[in-house]
Amino acid sequence: MTSPLAAKIAREYGTPAVVIDMDRVEANIARVQAACDAAGVANRPHIKTHKSPLLAKLQIAAGAKGITCQKIGEAEVMAEAGIDDILISYNLLGEEKMNRLGRLLESTDVTVAADNPVVIGDLPKAAALAGRPLGVVIECDTGRKRAGVETPAEAIELAKLVAASPGLSFKGFMLYPTEDGWPEAQKFFDTALAGVRLEGLEPTIVSTGGSPNMKNVGRLAGATEHRPGTYIYNDRMQVAAGVATFDDCALHVYATVVSRAGVDRGILDSGSKTLTSDPGGGIDGYGYILEHPEARIARFAEEHGFLDLAKCNERPKVGDVVRIVPNHVCVVVNMVDEVVMVRGQEIVGILPVAARGKLR
Amino acid sequence: MTSPLAAKIAREYGTPAVVIDMDRVEANIARVQAACDAAGVANRPHIKTHKSPLLAKLQIAAGAKGITCQKIGEAEVMAEAGIDDILISYNLLGEEKMNRLGRLLESTDVTVAADNPVVIGDLPKAAALAGRPLGVVIECDTGRKRAGVETPAEAIELAKLVAASPGLSFKGFMLYPTEDGWPEAQKFFDTALAGVRLEGLEPTIVSTGGSPNMKNVGRLAGATEHRPGTYIYNDRMQVAAGVATFDDCALHVYATVVSRAGVDRGILDSGSKTLTSDPGGGIDGYGYILEHPEARIARFAEEHGFLDLAKCNERPKVGDVVRIVPNHVCVVVNMVDEVVMVRGQEIVGILPVAARGKLR
Repeated sequence: MTSPLAAKIAREYGTPAVVIDMDRVEANIARVQAACDAAGVANRPHIKTHKSPLLAKLQIAAGAKGITCQKIGEAEVMAEAGIDDILISYNLLGEEKMNRLGRLLESTDVTVAADNPVVIGDLPKAAALAGRPLGVVIECDTGRKRAGVETPAEAIELAKLVAASPGLSFKGFMLYPTEDGWPEAQKFFDTALAGVRLEGLEPTIVSTGGSPNMKNVGRLAGATEHRPGTYIYNDRMQVAAGVATFDDCALHVYATVVSRAGVDRGILDSGSKTLTSDPGGGIDGYGYILEHPEARIARFAEEHGFLDLAKCNERPKVGDVVRIVPNHVCVVVNMVDEVVMVRGQEIVGILPVAARGKLR
Repeated sequence: MTSPLAAKIAREYGTPAVVIDMDRVEANIARVQAACDAAGVANRPHIKTHKSPLLAKLQIAAGAKGITCQKIGEAEVMAEAGIDDILISYNLLGEEKMNRLGRLLESTDVTVAADNPVVIGDLPKAAALAGRPLGVVIECDTGRKRAGVETPAEAIELAKLVAASPGLSFKGFMLYPTEDGWPEAQKFFDTALAGVRLEGLEPTIVSTGGSPNMKNVGRLAGATEHRPGTYIYNDRMQVAAGVATFDDCALHVYATVVSRAGVDRGILDSGSKTLTSDPGGGIDGYGYILEHPEARIARFAEEHGFLDLAKCNERPKVGDVVRIVPNHVCVVVNMVDEVVMVRGQEIVGILPVAARGKLR
């Protein structure tokens, strides 16, 4: 059961194909911008999801204040395309990074995150190279145990260190609360805010994050902006988090059934090299097949998606082309050099994933 | 505790860096070629591991008969570089694939695998486009429940179908036995062989696969060739399978510790976007850190590797650069556009991963 568009994509482009529906992309951009507007916080979308200057510009045109990048390499691609307000939400350190950050800062308004004195000790080198101040936000851990200081006291100390460092400018705080951790985040932030004010410092950026957190956007009193990423495409994780429906999922992997060697099983031409082994926070299987919702993508080899068809009433045949909603869309986008853009039943273009694979 | 080479790579190239030691690469190539020679089977290395024409040519110069690719896009890159004996070990079907396969076959000696009549029904289109015969091996499942017919009777029927199809030439059988499934694979093959001989068909390729299966190479009576892939770099899975030591691991991910927000934990600048979420067949953690073997890479965000340091006597500091042996090296190589080549303590070049991301 292959849809006419799937047949066209398989014939003209080939599978596996990573396909984005531009009508849905635009609707997702508009909906989340409206939600940020309604909540009274600026929108600073994380471009790690799409890695495309064109889509970043659509987000900015819709009202986003600027963008968030995770790596300098991503920021370089975005700055090259003319985007000028970039938060790099990551600890940067070392000579190679400072040289690149300095060059970037020469022409672009860049703010970086820091959670330790080693990073803050390196950042003045970039500011000196650029000959202008570098803004720094202090990353606060509010439950994820990832990066970020664990206590307001540490945040205050680092804010003072930034303010005392040549070429650095204290900009505020970056938080990424867990979905049910906003009351604790509020306490953390309030304490840190009171502390820096005692030092004569005033944050201008208080940034919260996460597309699943769109249900909490604006909930942190004092927040100035939010950093949602995945919302532009959505995926099974967003649906599981209750912030999107399958109709809001704008990206699908089109895959062909290439083998049906057993009654209850089949093989897709999309394995971990396309869909990735990302478990999606514990969702069952590695993707949701629109044409066969009872099918389970049970496991992967790099180029083989193992289909468990035991529960299917109708089973796909060899040659069928199916559409898959991935568990985690950001990691899928990073696997491909380009995505196919469609509107309705038409292929409207090929979009390079220009900032793909920027590890550094 | 950063080694001098790690410091140099971080300074001159930056982290994360995927680094290959060419002395070890060459030793691995030589060792496996010698093992194939000793076993009396040709070596047809799977290039999915390195995705580099330069390294494929080193394998051929060392004695490999040809190469194995998993996708047409990989074969196109290799053929463009002048490699002329290519097995595409995958079911190919559909108009887009047949057009490309036809063009490839015009100039290159290509053999493909098939495990069903739909695929065999399409392949004559490629042969017709190229104006010359296309060799086909029948893929046999001998325990992995991936692609491949489940019974010798099916294999015999498909061999007959190939032989009766215009432009197709029956070449033999492709097997990928499980590590302890060689006696069953022998039974399967013997029955299929007897069956095709009754039809007047004689295989010229009987191909077995897998680097972990190097301990079994030559064990299938009648095998003509073996398709090892991972051996050129090796990884934790190969070490776990007992076919390599950590000293044979030629590829390391060099990563920087960027955060140490808690006593028992830290963050590497390499997350799933570098090391991938590949579980490596159930190995504990997502990589082995040479400098801190007691550390555990417990989980990932895309750009964050979560270090559990609870069992470490000595704990890394922010700014330390560590070397990681990945769980599964093939999938890591696919994440990067290039790898850094070293010999001893010297950086000797940058090697493009020319066939990276060839999903189609």
